[in-house]
Amino acid sequence: MDNGTRALVDTAAITAVLTDYCRYLDRMDLEALGALFTIDCRVIYGPDPRLAAVGRGALVASLARMWRWKRTAHHLANVRIWIDGDTARAESAVHAWHEAADGSDAEIFGLYHDRLVRDGGDWRIAERRMEMTGSRGGFRVPIPPAPRAAPPAGWRPPEGLDG
Amino acid sequence: MDNGTRALVDTAAITAVLTDYCRYLDRMDLEALGALFTIDCRVIYGPDPRLAAVGRGALVASLARMWRWKRTAHHLANVRIWIDGDTARAESAVHAWHEAADGSDAEIFGLYHDRLVRDGGDWRIAERRMEMTGSRGGFRVPIPPAPRAAPPAGWRPPEGLDG
Amino acid sequence: MDNGTRALVDTAAITAVLTDYCRYLDRMDLEALGALFTIDCRVIYGPDPRLAAVGRGALVASLARMWRWKRTAHHLANVRIWIDGDTARAESAVHAWHEAADGSDAEIFGLYHDRLVRDGGDWRIAERRMEMTGSRGGFRVPIPPAPRAAPPAGWRPPEGLDG
Repeated sequence: MDNGTRALVDTAAITAVLTDYCRYLDRMDLEALGALFTIDCRVIYGPDPRLAAVGRGALVASLARMWRWKRTAHHLANVRIWIDGDTARAESAVHAWHEAADGSDAEIFGLYHDRLVRDGGDWRIAERRMEMTGSRGGFRVPIPPAPRAAPPAGWRPPEGLDG
Repeated sequence: MDNGTRALVDTAAITAVLTDYCRYLDRMDLEALGALFTIDCRVIYGPDPRLAAVGRGALVASLARMWRWKRTAHHLANVRIWIDGDTARAESAVHAWHEAADGSDAEIFGLYHDRLVRDGGDWRIAERRMEMTGSRGGFRVPIPPAPRAAPPAGWRPPEGLDG
Repeated sequence: MDNGTRALVDTAAITAVLTDYCRYLDRMDLEALGALFTIDCRVIYGPDPRLAAVGRGALVASLARMWRWKRTAHHLANVRIWIDGDTARAESAVHAWHEAADGSDAEIFGLYHDRLVRDGGDWRIAERRMEMTGSRGGFRVPIPPAPRAAPPAGWRPPEGLDG
């Protein structure tokens, strides 16, 4: 396998890891989800201590919180991967729909920032950090906002575009 | 072409088939959609007889039901493909937005479970089965729910995470 | 690198360009976004003159209008790419969520139709045209509707599927 093919194969393998996270989370197969992370992974959905985990076991235990939703749908998009030998960085976006026990729903648009490592034959997530672009429907988990540049001084909205 | 490249080419071709299903359905180009399936395909959106079709012709005829919506947008995500020679399995997620004639809208978050075959030079869907993770806005088509593990005995929701 | 691998590498590079457009737009990094387009690009979001730009500088200037939203999330899906030597066509779908200053939100489901060129070592968008499949929440930017075939004469909706 030449280097070009190798990079494509690694990219596909890492994309599968990021995808399986969403698939396993929606089925609440937390053991399978845990195996996507290194044993000593660090995962930070937000600064609240309940939203951080060190180690695969702690991550699996903490994600049991997702059972407070009746159902969820995590759809991945905008995947970008940068490989450097046996490590990689990835950024991806998630549209996460959540249905509460009372039938109401809440959505977030989030970003995952990951560091992955080649661990034996498999790529695994060693570090995951989450940011949130936006939310709807009263989602109140304190995930930090994704950065967005401010308009230049003196910027004014265009007239009449939305009215 | 080596085996690694061949697997990547096949994966890309199958992804294109799954993507084109969404594209053709949103434009209601049902002839083009039909050609993505084998002549003797079996498609089951749900146990209701109106939601199942045997054969490409029956599938195309039954999908004419989508004209009851004014417009739709089917966005594919979370694509996973497992190839075994001239057959393949695929799983993917769809966010399907539907606008009714009265301007109201309804959404579903669904899963497609597919079996594909290499049919001449092309991959085609031989079997498709759908499940639904959730819905919003009064979508009432009886698509079966996707399985989700139940919490372990004694599980209790975390305090205060949502407000 | 053989031809099969070359096509896969080009496809991945073009997908990255389409993805980065969404990423940079959500962070309002308009300089980085501009570099995804050729210097003499033509971008038409709709027939309204405020929705068209000729040249990278004009595009960057015109996209400053996105600051009228407090936050946005552009999630790409359904990417299809057809390469022909040093040019390519692409079609992709976007789910674009927008939060207004008053906290309300609006969404569109859109299509991007692109022509790309190999420009030095990089693929860049030379032409982008947008269509809209649907919208929700009072999005009123006049993006043209995507075509959808009409039902055949005499078509009638199925009984009882949605009620």
